[in-house]
Amino acid sequence: MSEPPVAVNLAAKLAQFDEPWSPRTVARFNGHDVMVAKFEGDFVWHSHPDTDDLFLVLSGDVTIRLREGDVELRPGELFVVPLGVEHQPGTTDGAEVLLIEPTGTPNTGDRATAAPRIEI
Amino acid sequence: MSEPPVAVNLAAKLAQFDEPWSPRTVARFNGHDVMVAKFEGDFVWHSHPDTDDLFLVLSGDVTIRLREGDVELRPGELFVVPLGVEHQPGTTDGAEVLLIEPTGTPNTGDRATAAPRIEI
Repeated sequence: MSEPPVAVNLAAKLAQFDEPWSPRTVARFNGHDVMVAKFEGDFVWHSHPDTDDLFLVLSGDVTIRLREGDVELRPGELFVVPLGVEHQPGTTDGAEVLLIEPTGTPNTGDRATAAPRIEI
Repeated sequence: MSEPPVAVNLAAKLAQFDEPWSPRTVARFNGHDVMVAKFEGDFVWHSHPDTDDLFLVLSGDVTIRLREGDVELRPGELFVVPLGVEHQPGTTDGAEVLLIEPTGTPNTGDRATAAPRIEI
């Protein structure tokens, strides 16, 4: 018997972990991981040569620094970093974020330094 | 000169239209349209043979009826309908929803009856 289908509650998923910059996969979609993550301080500058990078802020404040300027996001706001574009995500007071990237994409753009993909 | 990059505010996009079941594209991501839509009452039963279908509820209540049971969603909850699975989205009191589907996917599963894709 398979489980009956249920919705994914993003707040409940976010309550299951504290570690910043360590996305958790909560659903799969067309070969992509749908993830939730906690941001604290600044992440590294990086880019993804093969994929766009979608950020939707759920709580808190996010700044996505690009070489051409900063993008400020509040809850209910999203931004797509185009593939190949260098960016540095960061937050002043902390944030919870929905991310979508192809399954297996290293979050730093580099497999050597990437966080493991954890499904919850 | 290109425009400086700015965040997409989903509430501001939703304030630009009233028509239910007529998704508006607000961003592009890896060949997909990121859309916002308003739901009122029940949509048609349909399926998408070539794509999963992602629903994230922003406000209101959504029921996604599947042949194997109903999935109830509240704000901050998401559900992915796997490709080929028949489903009927609906709402009791109205809802605002983020949808992601490959660019060009007919929202009814059928080009003859699909809403046009409108970018805002």
